[in-house]
Amino acid sequence: MTMTDASRSHTITWEDPTATWQKATAMSGLEYWQALMARELPAPPIAVLMNMLPVEVVEGRIVFEGLPADYHLNPIGTVHGGFAATLLDSALACAIHTTLPVGWSYTTLQLNLHYTRAITPQTGAVRCEGIVIHRGKTMATAEAKLTDAAGKLYAHGTTTCMIFSPREA
Amino acid sequence: MTMTDASRSHTITWEDPTATWQKATAMSGLEYWQALMARELPAPPIAVLMNMLPVEVVEGRIVFEGLPADYHLNPIGTVHGGFAATLLDSALACAIHTTLPVGWSYTTLQLNLHYTRAITPQTGAVRCEGIVIHRGKTMATAEAKLTDAAGKLYAHGTTTCMIFSPREA
Amino acid sequence: MTMTDASRSHTITWEDPTATWQKATAMSGLEYWQALMARELPAPPIAVLMNMLPVEVVEGRIVFEGLPADYHLNPIGTVHGGFAATLLDSALACAIHTTLPVGWSYTTLQLNLHYTRAITPQTGAVRCEGIVIHRGKTMATAEAKLTDAAGKLYAHGTTTCMIFSPREA
Amino acid sequence: MTMTDASRSHTITWEDPTATWQKATAMSGLEYWQALMARELPAPPIAVLMNMLPVEVVEGRIVFEGLPADYHLNPIGTVHGGFAATLLDSALACAIHTTLPVGWSYTTLQLNLHYTRAITPQTGAVRCEGIVIHRGKTMATAEAKLTDAAGKLYAHGTTTCMIFSPREA
Repeated sequence: MTMTDASRSHTITWEDPTATWQKATAMSGLEYWQALMARELPAPPIAVLMNMLPVEVVEGRIVFEGLPADYHLNPIGTVHGGFAATLLDSALACAIHTTLPVGWSYTTLQLNLHYTRAITPQTGAVRCEGIVIHRGKTMATAEAKLTDAAGKLYAHGTTTCMIFSPREA
Repeated sequence: MTMTDASRSHTITWEDPTATWQKATAMSGLEYWQALMARELPAPPIAVLMNMLPVEVVEGRIVFEGLPADYHLNPIGTVHGGFAATLLDSALACAIHTTLPVGWSYTTLQLNLHYTRAITPQTGAVRCEGIVIHRGKTMATAEAKLTDAAGKLYAHGTTTCMIFSPREA
Repeated sequence: MTMTDASRSHTITWEDPTATWQKATAMSGLEYWQALMARELPAPPIAVLMNMLPVEVVEGRIVFEGLPADYHLNPIGTVHGGFAATLLDSALACAIHTTLPVGWSYTTLQLNLHYTRAITPQTGAVRCEGIVIHRGKTMATAEAKLTDAAGKLYAHGTTTCMIFSPREA
Repeated sequence: MTMTDASRSHTITWEDPTATWQKATAMSGLEYWQALMARELPAPPIAVLMNMLPVEVVEGRIVFEGLPADYHLNPIGTVHGGFAATLLDSALACAIHTTLPVGWSYTTLQLNLHYTRAITPQTGAVRCEGIVIHRGKTMATAEAKLTDAAGKLYAHGTTTCMIFSPREA
């Protein structure tokens, strides 16, 4: 980050994700996230933009780490709810994604978020853990919690995703 | 945006928001958003990061416009749900903010979002209209809808915010 | 209602709903609710238990009326949230049901409810209007508001339902 | 339950809850629910109507048991979502109630529910466990799961409640 007087600047760079998506179609959800964690696949643009990365993944559970920054600030002096929303959405949907075999896909239908504490750039790195609650044949639900290094809870939420078999997708 | 081989880049710049917050403490919520729309106050960092701006505001109702871009893409080839979540959160909370007199403040407790269509960079500019549903003395609720230029619905949601009088804040 | 000392009593009676379901399979969702409103079909048991009835129905919109009573009271002296939840769930899901042709079915995946005022038996009859927001091929969303005779808002909410064509159901 | 031809009947009786509320004002939330479980206080009317009772309670956690019956049936042949909604609302709000000292009160602002399986009268007794997630000074959140005797999940949800100190209540 560079600073000049009262103006700040932040540059992000990312790789064309098209090639990644093509590789991803031959992988299960778990394989995809393992490859991404191992840096064998580049991070998606939104992860670069929002300053977040997956740090743990097993079937049905994924943890993202995010670093709140000045460029996440909202008009009332704290980090915008969209930062936590993006982390929670990612942890919730990707936890479900890790349960999908090759050829299956999903879409998020609904997201419910609870904010329990304000995040600021001084909060430091936060962890967002998503866990599958229900995995049916056509829909799944998950829950996620967003905490700081000391384990304090800043937000939590749940999701409903629809799941598509290769035949339907 | 500059492109080199398979890598993309995007730079955002924003002004130090501290001075804005100090001015905002002497304004009602409606005055604040009117000043921001008139460019008398700089946009908050998150608005720059997420590519969104308020375009209409009256008491109890605000409309944000957002432009989805390549840097909002998620790992499955569409714009990440965090883009719509940030727009909906903004429209919902700021609609409530426009009802607050000088010295009052608010915090978002809960957000419920429904995704009805995938957004892509080809969707073009989207509008997100937030409207207050209930404005009590200690809490308020609002609803928002996110549509494209043709009026097609991509997402909608509701919020619960807590409201603080100057004595409590 | 009969009262003896400090004990109250309430008796409900309902018809075996099996015959109704068989007739319903040959009707569209709208035809079903019109027949129920015309008393050509008996009210479902839950409607008798919760003291509610549909009073208006068109495609994509339905209004239920409910009468809060002493037997809906919760441990803190107001009508239990389950009364409003049952009305909202009904108005939300049935608004979607009215859009389904013969042979289609639906299931409620998710319900989000906001409570804005306490209901008591003194509130009198309440109206709960459900309206479809999005009607896709495999899912639909709706919103509902619960108001008293003067139009005061007591609760509102939204739903996500999954929709099944005759082939899938 | 008595049956005559195609008509069914169910009678509920409950005690005037006014005396209970007066006693409750001198008790903490935990004391209240312990007294109710010990049958030192009568069950609230809604619990009789919906066929549910608390069966376990400690600070921050409560379990309700409910028995789905024919009179809970909806128009499509399964138990109406209002049955699970009432159980989840109770478990969520009462888990928070168990954390409140004498003189404090609460109100439910918001409820988010996910339905994962249909309940029928054949499901048998279900358990609904509510656990506090966040307990702040002015608001609290909780989560709840509704399962059958075999541990199968039928519904889950979260809540946001507002909390009032004796000075505010």
